[in-house]
Amino acid sequence: MSLVSPQITSFQQSSSWIRRMFEAGAELKQRYGAEQVFDFSLGNPDLPPSSAIIETIRDLAGQLSAPASLSYMPNAGYPEARAALAAWLSQDQGLPIGADNLVLTVGAAGGLNCFFHTVLSPGDEVICPAPYFVEYGFYCGNHGGLLRPVKSMPDSFALDLDSIAAAIGPKTRCLLINSPNNPSGVVYGGEEIQALADLLEQASRQHGRPIYLVSDEPYRFLNFSGHPLPSVFAHYTHSVIVSSFSKNLALAGERIGYVAVNPALAQAGELMAGLVFSNRVLGFVNAPCLGQKIIAACLEKADELAAPQYEVYLERRRLMAQVLDAAGIQYQLPAGTFYFFPKTPKGLDDVAFVQQLLQQRILAVPGSGFGYPGYFRLSLCLDKKFILAAQPGFIKAAQAD
Amino acid sequence: MSLVSPQITSFQQSSSWIRRMFEAGAELKQRYGAEQVFDFSLGNPDLPPSSAIIETIRDLAGQLSAPASLSYMPNAGYPEARAALAAWLSQDQGLPIGADNLVLTVGAAGGLNCFFHTVLSPGDEVICPAPYFVEYGFYCGNHGGLLRPVKSMPDSFALDLDSIAAAIGPKTRCLLINSPNNPSGVVYGGEEIQALADLLEQASRQHGRPIYLVSDEPYRFLNFSGHPLPSVFAHYTHSVIVSSFSKNLALAGERIGYVAVNPALAQAGELMAGLVFSNRVLGFVNAPCLGQKIIAACLEKADELAAPQYEVYLERRRLMAQVLDAAGIQYQLPAGTFYFFPKTPKGLDDVAFVQQLLQQRILAVPGSGFGYPGYFRLSLCLDKKFILAAQPGFIKAAQAD
Repeated sequence: MSLVSPQITSFQQSSSWIRRMFEAGAELKQRYGAEQVFDFSLGNPDLPPSSAIIETIRDLAGQLSAPASLSYMPNAGYPEARAALAAWLSQDQGLPIGADNLVLTVGAAGGLNCFFHTVLSPGDEVICPAPYFVEYGFYCGNHGGLLRPVKSMPDSFALDLDSIAAAIGPKTRCLLINSPNNPSGVVYGGEEIQALADLLEQASRQHGRPIYLVSDEPYRFLNFSGHPLPSVFAHYTHSVIVSSFSKNLALAGERIGYVAVNPALAQAGELMAGLVFSNRVLGFVNAPCLGQKIIAACLEKADELAAPQYEVYLERRRLMAQVLDAAGIQYQLPAGTFYFFPKTPKGLDDVAFVQQLLQQRILAVPGSGFGYPGYFRLSLCLDKKFILAAQPGFIKAAQAD
Repeated sequence: MSLVSPQITSFQQSSSWIRRMFEAGAELKQRYGAEQVFDFSLGNPDLPPSSAIIETIRDLAGQLSAPASLSYMPNAGYPEARAALAAWLSQDQGLPIGADNLVLTVGAAGGLNCFFHTVLSPGDEVICPAPYFVEYGFYCGNHGGLLRPVKSMPDSFALDLDSIAAAIGPKTRCLLINSPNNPSGVVYGGEEIQALADLLEQASRQHGRPIYLVSDEPYRFLNFSGHPLPSVFAHYTHSVIVSSFSKNLALAGERIGYVAVNPALAQAGELMAGLVFSNRVLGFVNAPCLGQKIIAACLEKADELAAPQYEVYLERRRLMAQVLDAAGIQYQLPAGTFYFFPKTPKGLDDVAFVQQLLQQRILAVPGSGFGYPGYFRLSLCLDKKFILAAQPGFIKAAQAD
């Protein structure tokens, strides 16, 4: 008799090749030393938090001797943290968003679980353009839903609106996008979002049930496209934004994120109440209080704080492109995020090519792990010296048979 | 078309009377001022964290300029935080528990959700002595399980082993206890745990499936019984402990807890892998990093830090007993926790009696909210001056018709 449920066993097996990659990486680091391994596998910011955040934490310590200073607060978050987020997000999205439309969550991953728990009924489907972050499948499955990936256009990774339209049916509850996109680096412009919104409006009418547009945006601060990013709120009423401060403020470990409900939604209060309830009963209860206090104090200058990181990632992107060019590996220059999603050379199987990279002590993730075989993901969460030093390895792997 | 799923709507309705209580309380505080309202409704520590914890946070700030200092760590937690927890918990439980048997979680609520997600299959049942913390029903239901409450003995709240034995069937996956108990204040001794373990051993053999014993222990530091608390690990192999530092370190808002798997369990590694996986895919990802750093630094002296709180709650317990005596309200003196669970006077309906208390500006929670009508819960998370000042109100409510 297994100690865990059959479903969990099967889920773990389906994600176990990623674990094998991590284990292979750990083994390489042990054998050759961490400096001799080029780890492009993790989407985990390697930068320290900015000094302003560190100062904020120091200042916070002086305010904690008040009663209940680290005790529970309302499940949606401290009013002052929600107010700070409302002000910053209104600026970021270019339209007014009130604190009443925001729930603070345990990162974006916690926010997505709260949202799906709130809206999905058993068998409901969530359509998602591929390539996509593999955890999305679990986030839907946890709450009785089913993720239905729809492949984006080859090479450009633009939305394939015809395929999306064909995939929508009476069970479709949500369409989940991630822009800037992990892993492809694609950024959807205003026209593309509007076309998607038109499609969703029509499909919602056809099936007599509004389809939610869910926009997961933790990489919004890394937009290299030269164009401002659109807000889904301006294009489509039944929309929510889920995001976090894991990447822009290098706060991933503290787990601080949010769900924002479109203020244009007439029954926004009903959805908000459901989200707050789900945040409570799923065991999150509330976003971590120290993380909340940090953003309440820092959000006013968040863009300023993220700016140096933007420059770091922009530089790494330039160098990564040089290295791939030298290796003759094809890629679309990412318009956002700190990822590259190049094509495997010579039409090689992506899992096999990632093994070849491993022999050069380069860790990457095969596109199969993102529902998009034939490509592989490189994350730029490593010092530029490693990017440059990995060049001979990329060249050798690309030339291997 | 509802914006939320029908299940969430029905869940929210079933818990909405608690919300009405909170709203009634907020209204009273607005009308009469917070000082004129006696809030015995919330299990939320009103004490500040100890100065040692505040100092730790200040010290932490000095260590955060290292790369990735607030980024992701392994899903089970920082190795140093798990090691500190292993050392402290071994002491607390009176037997050796290694770091490999521990997952740090987003509070005990997050830990319970991870555990149920890992072990429950659709239709599995979790038996729980009543009265019980109402959220348990959601924690099971979230993952396809069903909570089956079994009433404890009237007045003493001792386990009703015959009723538990009768409730166990082929779908029984877990037995969930909470000792010291919210709301009853009961503490199970070693003999009671052993009798329960014997029963579970026999039922597991009978049904060919091991039944887990899950011990939720966040109030373990508030044991007024005069006897040391037993460890379930010493009595029953298929056991896990779930707990948090929300109460003893007054850290509820930071969401730091854990699941510990009995080292005597032969396949503990399989269960641990499932728990770590669930922690990841449910969107917790990891326990908040600042909370982890706090316990890594402070756990060595945790008992010392909790000691002043112990004294505060002991004193409040003495005063609460005086006040209830003066009002002629019957209760069993709680052997642990910061709750009283008295009987409603004159056999009154508990919801009606709580309304009578409300007219005296006293906030309490009816026993119906804990699956045990005819009683009501008083939480001692308020200054002793409020406990004393509420005496005339308790007397009037108890005398009202």
